[in-house]
Amino acid sequence: MKRTLGTCYYPEHWPEEIWEADARRMAQAGLTWVRIGEFAWSRIEPEPGNLNWDWIDRAIEVLAAAGLKIVLGTPTATPPRWMLHRHPDMLAVDAHGNPRKFGSRRHYCFSHEGYAQECDRIVRLMAERYSKSLHIGAWQTDNEYSCHDTTLSFSEAASEAFRTWLKERYGSIDALNRAWGNVFWSMDYDSFEDIDLPNLTVTEPNPAHVLAFRRFSSDQVVRFNRRQAEILRAHSDAPISHNFMGRTTDFDHFKVGDDLEIATWDSYPMGFLEDRVEAAADHKRAYARQGDPDFQAFHHDLYRAVGKGRWWVMEQQPGPVNWAPYNPAPLPGMVRLWTWEAFAHGAEAVCYFRWRQAPFAQEQMHAGLLRPDSAAAPGLDEAMQVAREIADAPDASTASAQVGLVFDYDADFAWTTQPHGEGSSYFQLVFDTYRALRKLGLSIDILPPTARDFSGYKLIAAPGLMHIPEALKRAFCETDATVVLGPRAGARGPEMEIPVPLPPDLPGLDVTVSRVESIRPDMPMALSGEGNVIGYREELETSADAMFQLKDGSPVAVANGNLVYMAGWGDQTALNRLFSSLCNTLEIKTMLLPEGVRVRDTATERFWFNYRAEPVETPVGVIPAADLVRQAL
Amino acid sequence: MKRTLGTCYYPEHWPEEIWEADARRMAQAGLTWVRIGEFAWSRIEPEPGNLNWDWIDRAIEVLAAAGLKIVLGTPTATPPRWMLHRHPDMLAVDAHGNPRKFGSRRHYCFSHEGYAQECDRIVRLMAERYSKSLHIGAWQTDNEYSCHDTTLSFSEAASEAFRTWLKERYGSIDALNRAWGNVFWSMDYDSFEDIDLPNLTVTEPNPAHVLAFRRFSSDQVVRFNRRQAEILRAHSDAPISHNFMGRTTDFDHFKVGDDLEIATWDSYPMGFLEDRVEAAADHKRAYARQGDPDFQAFHHDLYRAVGKGRWWVMEQQPGPVNWAPYNPAPLPGMVRLWTWEAFAHGAEAVCYFRWRQAPFAQEQMHAGLLRPDSAAAPGLDEAMQVAREIADAPDASTASAQVGLVFDYDADFAWTTQPHGEGSSYFQLVFDTYRALRKLGLSIDILPPTARDFSGYKLIAAPGLMHIPEALKRAFCETDATVVLGPRAGARGPEMEIPVPLPPDLPGLDVTVSRVESIRPDMPMALSGEGNVIGYREELETSADAMFQLKDGSPVAVANGNLVYMAGWGDQTALNRLFSSLCNTLEIKTMLLPEGVRVRDTATERFWFNYRAEPVETPVGVIPAADLVRQAL
Amino acid sequence: MKRTLGTCYYPEHWPEEIWEADARRMAQAGLTWVRIGEFAWSRIEPEPGNLNWDWIDRAIEVLAAAGLKIVLGTPTATPPRWMLHRHPDMLAVDAHGNPRKFGSRRHYCFSHEGYAQECDRIVRLMAERYSKSLHIGAWQTDNEYSCHDTTLSFSEAASEAFRTWLKERYGSIDALNRAWGNVFWSMDYDSFEDIDLPNLTVTEPNPAHVLAFRRFSSDQVVRFNRRQAEILRAHSDAPISHNFMGRTTDFDHFKVGDDLEIATWDSYPMGFLEDRVEAAADHKRAYARQGDPDFQAFHHDLYRAVGKGRWWVMEQQPGPVNWAPYNPAPLPGMVRLWTWEAFAHGAEAVCYFRWRQAPFAQEQMHAGLLRPDSAAAPGLDEAMQVAREIADAPDASTASAQVGLVFDYDADFAWTTQPHGEGSSYFQLVFDTYRALRKLGLSIDILPPTARDFSGYKLIAAPGLMHIPEALKRAFCETDATVVLGPRAGARGPEMEIPVPLPPDLPGLDVTVSRVESIRPDMPMALSGEGNVIGYREELETSADAMFQLKDGSPVAVANGNLVYMAGWGDQTALNRLFSSLCNTLEIKTMLLPEGVRVRDTATERFWFNYRAEPVETPVGVIPAADLVRQAL
Ligand SMILES: [Zn+2]
Ligand SMILES: [Zn+2]
Ligand SMILES: [Zn+2]
Repeated sequence: MKRTLGTCYYPEHWPEEIWEADARRMAQAGLTWVRIGEFAWSRIEPEPGNLNWDWIDRAIEVLAAAGLKIVLGTPTATPPRWMLHRHPDMLAVDAHGNPRKFGSRRHYCFSHEGYAQECDRIVRLMAERYSKSLHIGAWQTDNEYSCHDTTLSFSEAASEAFRTWLKERYGSIDALNRAWGNVFWSMDYDSFEDIDLPNLTVTEPNPAHVLAFRRFSSDQVVRFNRRQAEILRAHSDAPISHNFMGRTTDFDHFKVGDDLEIATWDSYPMGFLEDRVEAAADHKRAYARQGDPDFQAFHHDLYRAVGKGRWWVMEQQPGPVNWAPYNPAPLPGMVRLWTWEAFAHGAEAVCYFRWRQAPFAQEQMHAGLLRPDSAAAPGLDEAMQVAREIADAPDASTASAQVGLVFDYDADFAWTTQPHGEGSSYFQLVFDTYRALRKLGLSIDILPPTARDFSGYKLIAAPGLMHIPEALKRAFCETDATVVLGPRAGARGPEMEIPVPLPPDLPGLDVTVSRVESIRPDMPMALSGEGNVIGYREELETSADAMFQLKDGSPVAVANGNLVYMAGWGDQTALNRLFSSLCNTLEIKTMLLPEGVRVRDTATERFWFNYRAEPVETPVGVIPAADLVRQAL
Repeated sequence: MKRTLGTCYYPEHWPEEIWEADARRMAQAGLTWVRIGEFAWSRIEPEPGNLNWDWIDRAIEVLAAAGLKIVLGTPTATPPRWMLHRHPDMLAVDAHGNPRKFGSRRHYCFSHEGYAQECDRIVRLMAERYSKSLHIGAWQTDNEYSCHDTTLSFSEAASEAFRTWLKERYGSIDALNRAWGNVFWSMDYDSFEDIDLPNLTVTEPNPAHVLAFRRFSSDQVVRFNRRQAEILRAHSDAPISHNFMGRTTDFDHFKVGDDLEIATWDSYPMGFLEDRVEAAADHKRAYARQGDPDFQAFHHDLYRAVGKGRWWVMEQQPGPVNWAPYNPAPLPGMVRLWTWEAFAHGAEAVCYFRWRQAPFAQEQMHAGLLRPDSAAAPGLDEAMQVAREIADAPDASTASAQVGLVFDYDADFAWTTQPHGEGSSYFQLVFDTYRALRKLGLSIDILPPTARDFSGYKLIAAPGLMHIPEALKRAFCETDATVVLGPRAGARGPEMEIPVPLPPDLPGLDVTVSRVESIRPDMPMALSGEGNVIGYREELETSADAMFQLKDGSPVAVANGNLVYMAGWGDQTALNRLFSSLCNTLEIKTMLLPEGVRVRDTATERFWFNYRAEPVETPVGVIPAADLVRQAL
Repeated sequence: MKRTLGTCYYPEHWPEEIWEADARRMAQAGLTWVRIGEFAWSRIEPEPGNLNWDWIDRAIEVLAAAGLKIVLGTPTATPPRWMLHRHPDMLAVDAHGNPRKFGSRRHYCFSHEGYAQECDRIVRLMAERYSKSLHIGAWQTDNEYSCHDTTLSFSEAASEAFRTWLKERYGSIDALNRAWGNVFWSMDYDSFEDIDLPNLTVTEPNPAHVLAFRRFSSDQVVRFNRRQAEILRAHSDAPISHNFMGRTTDFDHFKVGDDLEIATWDSYPMGFLEDRVEAAADHKRAYARQGDPDFQAFHHDLYRAVGKGRWWVMEQQPGPVNWAPYNPAPLPGMVRLWTWEAFAHGAEAVCYFRWRQAPFAQEQMHAGLLRPDSAAAPGLDEAMQVAREIADAPDASTASAQVGLVFDYDADFAWTTQPHGEGSSYFQLVFDTYRALRKLGLSIDILPPTARDFSGYKLIAAPGLMHIPEALKRAFCETDATVVLGPRAGARGPEMEIPVPLPPDLPGLDVTVSRVESIRPDMPMALSGEGNVIGYREELETSADAMFQLKDGSPVAVANGNLVYMAGWGDQTALNRLFSSLCNTLEIKTMLLPEGVRVRDTATERFWFNYRAEPVETPVGVIPAADLVRQAL
């Protein structure tokens, strides 16, 4: 499949007179896709039951006439104001008990059946009207589930749905009390009706209660999406997508992905650097106009997995955004670099958000490819350059990776429920691991926790898997790949309880975690040799070979057969030692990349990216600042 | 008019037996004014309709008999407890939806009509009773509007009043939807009744919605004050004043000032330094016992403008206060210095808050001129020294300034609504500009955004004017003065939208802001030569002459005819370069003042103030710590 | 009385089959006591009125059969879920007005009479059933009053009870208005019914109002406990205890102690270091695996006073806890050291919390003496070593201290109400004083503010006593001991008012505090000679001898007869100077102890403790890391 570009367009924001010129200009710029519709409910249905599709019909015609293909979004992320007259209790409620009111977007509770039925209705109407259109190249459900912290809702609707979910999961209240250990602190329930959501408790609620609520909340998102996907699929053969948001971990993207043909994500490298990357100020300064060198790549690899191979960037930052603490302009070249990096990781398409900067409302300071006065913004030139470059580049493809990295949303729920030490985060642990592997020049596949067949991989990293189902434990033990587990591997049973025998309890790995501790971040524990354990450490009972130890001789990384256990949170130096050594043994070729330089392979090419603000000397020559080199494989 | 001193007195706090001695002692100290009444409603009207003016009558007689003149305050800042039985819904509501309860002060919503009528009633009764008294030298309405963040209220009363205000402003709901760009995210309203206040939304509300709410809230304060002013004016010829609070920008003081004869403000230099001045710790340490060297001066100049020339300090800090994070004692000499500084900026009167420290309630740790045991506190001596000094000093007067600085509350509302970068503030931008001008030894006039005639000024600074009405744009272009604009000049239309053509769109200034960015505060952008742009920067398309540039050649300050555009937030070094150079060209005489030294001219004298804690060598000789020199002009 | 050890056990958490083995293992480990019952209400009374004591009967029999003695706790800290059906309004309410919901523990308002009667009922039933049991060695009321900030409740029940309390205290509303100074800001009340709790006010409420509410809230805890104590005492001769929590100062522990025979406290040295000790990061790093060297000792001495000589550690940390920001493992030796330190301060018993780590619910990460898999955790060995050591050690006893330190909860309420400077805390002031005295090698008695007879003491330190009743002033003046007072001594009258004559107004001490100031913590005020005043200072009018002064000559410590006044908050150097000099004069022998080393005497021995992570040279030889030396006296 040829790589393609696109953009996000809001015909309803502009006078109809300029649609045609816009469409022509998009096509001339080399764009293929235009996403429309996803926030337009108030214009599609200005009053309940009064549908106004005409303008969408015309917009599609105008765009298609210019040769563009449409991604049509369901408008359910922005219910119109009148929806609240019909469903006054549809709003989500925050953890303090306040309703999350109308006046922006995503003002609905995933558990509200009345609103869900309204969504069924509008999606069905949309599907009926447009499923036969040849211009519709893909669908998008809703927009950025969970954005603005909207997965968890403490509404009455959520309470009721949670109780139903609990009944299904546990069957009897006694079973629930046993599973959660409610004998502790006399928390026993007599009836499912007595169970509240775990907010506003005097001190922390039962972690089993919290984990159940997080799993329930994730399931509500999956179900909400599935209703839309099923309706669309019943009417249309066009692929269905959803645009996920960066570092959003409170619902299971793999499960949502199971109901999609294409996973897409919204890539805002500079906003994310300020907002969602945990890093020291000097790192943020060094990459303030480029974004973190690994953050996009991680998500590219993640959504390739979520989309079972098919994935796009649906919203690509084209200039300064409006929503981060600070919103600088990117270095010249970065829009091109970001776009190519997505293709290097196997993206089929990259769409820029948005075509023209809107002069009004919340995102008035969000750059587009065009300025509000329709002049070209700097990003447009770079997009056009990529369009020219992909014209004679190979088709979309991806490397056959030797290294897999397991990412498990349920583990994130468990870590969030019980970080043990302040600031400890599963995402960060996995991302640290990813960064260490990437700095060795490796191309990585991200794998879901449902993976059982690891053939083809030489090395699997699966840090922080708090609960490991038996079948996955077996798969880890039986694969030919080397599997790196820990810290906290199998630290909890299915209900957030500490299992006995103590963790990790892996056949073939003689390791018992006898005690765990969290440590002040300003107290790194030095290894013999270079590197440190930071923040979290485990004491082991083990006869396995120590790969490295603390200065006092306590084992930190131990190996037993194909299994390696990491008894703490290693810093980058420690992780580099670990993976260099393993790759060396496994004959996986690594490189020591210069600061800010990263590589990624497709089936036919190796891409070299320089994220730094100055030229860097590399094995393929000097790469200018914010630039890339394509090397044929 | 002779300069005068005064104090704030609460006869109701003290046994009637000591009033006479207090009055005599005030007069002997050289005081002229005594402000009373402004928190006394529960003693004036102990139960609804049961008026008890007698004690005020007697207090006025006793004070007047000692030769003092009265400023009589309306008591509306402190409604008695019984008021809540009559108007249970009169309380303001905070942004989280909690009522702001009885038990301190300012517990009312400006939009509550029932309470407003109670205020009409008590003000009318007070005006009727005292308007013929020769002892009443001035009135004061209420006390410190907006103090304790009381301008914005999210009450039901505010909701309803806001809808009425919107109807008046926009006429039709379609006009409002268009003006706000509510097509974005399907935020269209069908009816004014559907519009809520912009709190508790899922993510940020529409900035146009927020700005409208801020303008409305400001108008509510103006109207509230106007009702009192009109009642007082109908009965009395005495001038009407209100005591504004330092760095309070959420209502338009100029508009309130239009209904007053005299603007007054409450000057707490040390409390403000800890609490409201944005500065590094070393600056706060250096001036911890003196206050910031520019903060008081700025407000003096501001309220001279608000009072259209007539202004007082109504509450002057006389010793340690109780309400700042830390409350040190002032250096000996500072009470005198602060008082003289007010006179240097043209004050008619300075009143100390308060006469005697109250041993009870919230302000028990707030110093007075007397200690709770009636012994003289250190401030009294300094006040008496000033009283002696003004006896043979010239009348109140002010310099004929060559430099004007525009301050626009509406711009502050817009910046607050959309700071773009974290911590960015319009007040701070204007204050940085003021400080840079002051450090050049200049006397400055602050000008309202309604100013159109700039004759007499050589230089006008108008930083950060987010919206510039056409008439003001014209005035800037047509004046003979040099006008310095930007950053963000004309960056928004009247409804918070980005205008097309792009800003600043000033006739005669070939500048287009093509892109803006906010930057981490730890990433200063160095100029060629000295100085930096910090936090906020604009990219320009321009043929105008660059006064200075970034090291990469991008223009930062450009000049075109009489207009200068500043495309970013300059640090003090950059601003010093800018204004030194302009003053040089304009033949405005500047001085390079030593750290902590400031000057200010009246019609006849130049005052030199040393804010430092050690003696400083100056062109008029060594000025001791916390002292001043008067130099005849 | 022989020193003993014990543990906290939850038979309801474990299969009944393993109780016997557990009991045998406890006895073999040398434990004497086992505390049970305190969170078991839902298993004692699974539904209202359906009592199930059988399992407790059996647990007691099994434990007693192994030779263990029982501490039986009333289960009132954890009302079962069904209680809320009977008393929906029993929950406490936080300062924002949100109910503090079911789902953890301590979910009750101390003022709710309905719940209090349920507690009467269950305590009476428990007392009736077990008072004749010879196995019950002691009772415990509830668990950790105030933990999780549960003393203050803003519920309707608390409002009503507060009004009743106010009526009792003030008699008439006029008296209350006068006492509080409600004339200020028109805060006068017409009726007790109009008085709300002091939350959600526009700005700070009247400090007299806040102090009254804090005193009321403390009294509610005292009354709640007294009801239980009276019921238990009516049925049983066994001593009654309550387990207080470290650094919990919002109710009067001495008053609760008056209703107990034994005071106990819950000692978590490492959790407290991270969570409740105010210290710089390097101190926290140095003691991260040991706990603060003075924090436990302070509480040991405090609860010896609260228990009028009889006191225990009811919960001793045995390994990592779960609830601090970071939860490291203790150094080997610390569990033994902590235990011996309690005995050195006179503890009768030390009980480890808990026997076996629970694999479920909130405390699943809290270490026990056993791991979840029943293997011995590292703490068990150390406990067993202490058990062997106490077998041939002297009986419990305590030193006859020459130094007394007054601790007054009411002073803490007043400082909390009005800290004057940010971060200022009475607890910290007293703790700083305690630390300075301890670093001189002194054994200290903590004294309640009701102490009047100071015979036997040579030195009394009583810092920060905001209000000093006349009788205590007299006792200070008449004792032979030297009494160190200030800062803020007698700074307030009984109703939070500033007294006239000004403080401290002590007969025989010619000191008047003429002015006070709070200072930025980064502005230490240097003394002549070593040391500083930090954060808070007073200006004095005095003819007394200055012991030391600021560099500008202002007196800081002055002496007059047996009274010493400290006019500011001294750092450790200043306090060392003060107390060294006084001890020298008073012929109290002091030592200069190495960093991290502390001593404490019993009647027969001097204990030397090394809190450091490395060996330290001391007068009794090198003490290894985390170890102790017992020296016969
Ligand atoms: Zn988006
Ligand atoms: Zn004031
Ligand atoms: Zn406990």
